[in-house]
Amino acid sequence: MSISPGTTLRELRERKPLVHQITNYVVMNETANATLALGALPVMAHAREEVEEMVGLASALVLNIGTLSEHWIEAMLRAGRAASARGIPVVLDPVGAGATAYRTDTARRILGEVEVTVLRGNQGEIATLVGADAEVRGVESMTIGLEPPALARGAARGLGVVASVTGPIDHVSDGERVVDVANGHPLLAAVTGTGCISSALTGCFLAAKPEEPLEAAAEALTALGVAAEDAADGAAGPGTFHARLYDALAALDPETLDGRARISES
Amino acid sequence: MSISPGTTLRELRERKPLVHQITNYVVMNETANATLALGALPVMAHAREEVEEMVGLASALVLNIGTLSEHWIEAMLRAGRAASARGIPVVLDPVGAGATAYRTDTARRILGEVEVTVLRGNQGEIATLVGADAEVRGVESMTIGLEPPALARGAARGLGVVASVTGPIDHVSDGERVVDVANGHPLLAAVTGTGCISSALTGCFLAAKPEEPLEAAAEALTALGVAAEDAADGAAGPGTFHARLYDALAALDPETLDGRARISES
Amino acid sequence: MSISPGTTLRELRERKPLVHQITNYVVMNETANATLALGALPVMAHAREEVEEMVGLASALVLNIGTLSEHWIEAMLRAGRAASARGIPVVLDPVGAGATAYRTDTARRILGEVEVTVLRGNQGEIATLVGADAEVRGVESMTIGLEPPALARGAARGLGVVASVTGPIDHVSDGERVVDVANGHPLLAAVTGTGCISSALTGCFLAAKPEEPLEAAAEALTALGVAAEDAADGAAGPGTFHARLYDALAALDPETLDGRARISES
Repeated sequence: MSISPGTTLRELRERKPLVHQITNYVVMNETANATLALGALPVMAHAREEVEEMVGLASALVLNIGTLSEHWIEAMLRAGRAASARGIPVVLDPVGAGATAYRTDTARRILGEVEVTVLRGNQGEIATLVGADAEVRGVESMTIGLEPPALARGAARGLGVVASVTGPIDHVSDGERVVDVANGHPLLAAVTGTGCISSALTGCFLAAKPEEPLEAAAEALTALGVAAEDAADGAAGPGTFHARLYDALAALDPETLDGRARISES
Repeated sequence: MSISPGTTLRELRERKPLVHQITNYVVMNETANATLALGALPVMAHAREEVEEMVGLASALVLNIGTLSEHWIEAMLRAGRAASARGIPVVLDPVGAGATAYRTDTARRILGEVEVTVLRGNQGEIATLVGADAEVRGVESMTIGLEPPALARGAARGLGVVASVTGPIDHVSDGERVVDVANGHPLLAAVTGTGCISSALTGCFLAAKPEEPLEAAAEALTALGVAAEDAADGAAGPGTFHARLYDALAALDPETLDGRARISES
Repeated sequence: MSISPGTTLRELRERKPLVHQITNYVVMNETANATLALGALPVMAHAREEVEEMVGLASALVLNIGTLSEHWIEAMLRAGRAASARGIPVVLDPVGAGATAYRTDTARRILGEVEVTVLRGNQGEIATLVGADAEVRGVESMTIGLEPPALARGAARGLGVVASVTGPIDHVSDGERVVDVANGHPLLAAVTGTGCISSALTGCFLAAKPEEPLEAAAEALTALGVAAEDAADGAAGPGTFHARLYDALAALDPETLDGRARISES
C-alpha cells in the first residue's frame, strides 16, 4: 500500500495540475477556491463548444450533477468522452442520485458512456447507483441497506470504478481492498458543498497520481479531513469554519500530513 | 397571536424539513448555507425534468427571480403548480420587480399561476406588484408612494398572499393584521443576497408551520434579524459579518429567541 | 495626470452608481459583494429579454466571459451594443482567452461589436487578443512574448481600448501613457475571482469617472490593491483573506487612499 497524502500533495504543488470542473452552480466558487488553496489550478468551463478543447489541457476532469439541465449533461458527456479517449482521469459526483429519476438516470448514463475513474458520493447516492436499498432526501443520504465498506466494494465491482463513499468515516474501494479514512469533522456537514469539494480534491490528487486511483482518492479525503480538523479548531460555527477551511487547505504541511492520517483497511 | 420564533425553530431543527429552492445564481450558495445553518435541509434543483418530482419531497418551495431566463421561469411555474396541487407552501421573492418589465411580468405571472403563500420583497418590489408608485434601481428599492405598513396590508389583500415587506423595519401582513419586526442590523444591506436569505428562511419556517404563514414569515425575519445582531457584534465589516452570519444562525438559541424578538403590531 | 483614487471613491460613494454585470457563475456573488463593499450598487442580469432595459438604468456595464454559453454571449452583445449606443462605459474581462478558441473568438467578437472602454485581463489573455505569443492554461497566464508595459500600450493601440493588464504589477495604458500600479498582495492570486473583482471595480470607478477611463482603471486597481494589503494583514490564509477583503474594501478611506497609492508611469 503506497498511500502517502503528504508525498502526493508535495508533487501536486510542484506541478500545479489543471483540473477541469463541470460542476453545479451552488459550489463552483467553493470547489475552485479549494482547488487553488490545495495548490492545483481549477478551470470551470461547460460550453459544448469548448469542453473537449479545455479538457485536453487538463490533468483531470471532475463531473458533478448537482444542478443539472440538458446542455450541461451534453457538455459532461462530451468532456467525459474526450477525457476517456485521452486517458485523463475522471471523477463523477452523482449529487442527489436517488432523489429524482433525472439525477439517477443521468449518473447512470455518464457511468455508461464515460470511463469514470473515481465515483465519489454519499452512501445513499452510491447505494442507489448499485441498486441497493437507499433513501436520498434532496441531496442528503438518509438510510441504506448495506454496511458502508461492503457498499464501497460492491459499487467498485459492479460499476468498474474506484468507489469513494464518504460519511462520518469514508470508505474507498477498488473492488478488492477497502481503505477507511477517519479524518474529518462534523462541521463539514454543516456547510453546503463540502462533498463537492471532496470530489474536486479527488480530481487534484488523481491529477498528481493518475495510475493509483484508489490511493489518490483516499489521500484526497485524508487531506480534506485533516484540513477540516484544523479549520474547526477555533471556528465559531459553520461560517467561520468555511472561511478557515481554505486557510487550512493552503496550510497543509506535506511533512506532517502522513502522520496525521487516520487510514486503515477494513 | 402565536408568534414564537423559538418554538418554531426548535421544531424545525427536530424535523429538518427539506426546502426546495429555485433561486438565482448569485446567492445559491448563500441561501443553501443559511438553510443548513438554521437547521433545515436545502435542495437546489431547476431542471424542468425533475422539479415536480423534487418538490414532492419537500416541505416548502422558494422561488426567486433574481437571475431569470426562459427555462428557469418554466421550471418555477412547474414546481410552483406542483406545490400548489399538493398543498406545499410557496415563497416568492420578486427580485428586481419594477426594474425591468421582464421581472415585473414574471413575478405577476407566477402570482397568477401559483398559489403563493408568502411574497417576500423590498418596498419597491412589492409596491410595483400592487401597482403603487415605486422606483426600483437594479435590485434596490429607492422610493415608494405608500407607508410600508399600509403597503404590506394592501399587497396582502390585493394579491391574496401574506406580504412580507422587508426594510429597516419589516412589515408582514395577511391583509388584516400587520406585524412589525424591528430586529436586524445595517450590515445586512452591505452583503448581497441577505434579502434572498430572508426568503429562504421564510421557506424554512413555513415548512415547520405551514398553517400559520403570517406567524412563520414574521418569525423567520426575527430569527435572521437576531442572528444579524449577533454576527455584527465583533465583525470588522461586511465580509467577516457575512461569515459570522452563518455562525450566528447555527447558534440561535430557541430558549432565548422569543425574548430577543422585537415584534409589535401596527 | 489626474489620478486620485480617493477623490473618485468619495464621489462614487455619494452617487452610488448602478453597475450592470453579466459575469460568470463562479464569481457572481463575489463581484456583487465587492461592488457593494466599495460603495456602488451591483445588478446581475443576463436574460436577453431584459439586458437592454437593465443597462439603460446603469452607469457602467461589465462583461465577463468566464463561463460562456450561447445565450450568454447573445446577452452580452445585446447589452454591450445598447451601452455603446447610450454612451455607457463598458469593461470587458476576456477570462481564459487563449485557452480555447471559443473564448478567444468570443472576446474578439465582443471587441468588434461593442465599444469596449476598458479591456481588463491578465498578460496571457491580453497578449492572445493582440496576437502576441502567449500561453494561457485554463484561466491562468503562463508566459508571454512581450514586456507587460509594451503589451498594455500595444493592446490599447491595436484594439482601441484602455488596456488594463494585471499581474504582480499592473499596467494600464490608453495607447500613449502607461500607468503602473504596484499595490496588491500575493494572496489575491490564491482566491478565485479576484481578477473578476478587479474588472467589477473598474466598472465602478468608470461609472464615477466615465470621461477618464485610463485614470479610472488605474484607480480601481489601486483601490483593490490597497484593500488587499489591508486584508492580508492579519489573515491566516486565502479563506480569511477573502472575507477580510470585503471588510477592507468597505473600510477604504478616501482621505488616505491617494497617499497609499503606488502609482508611476513607465
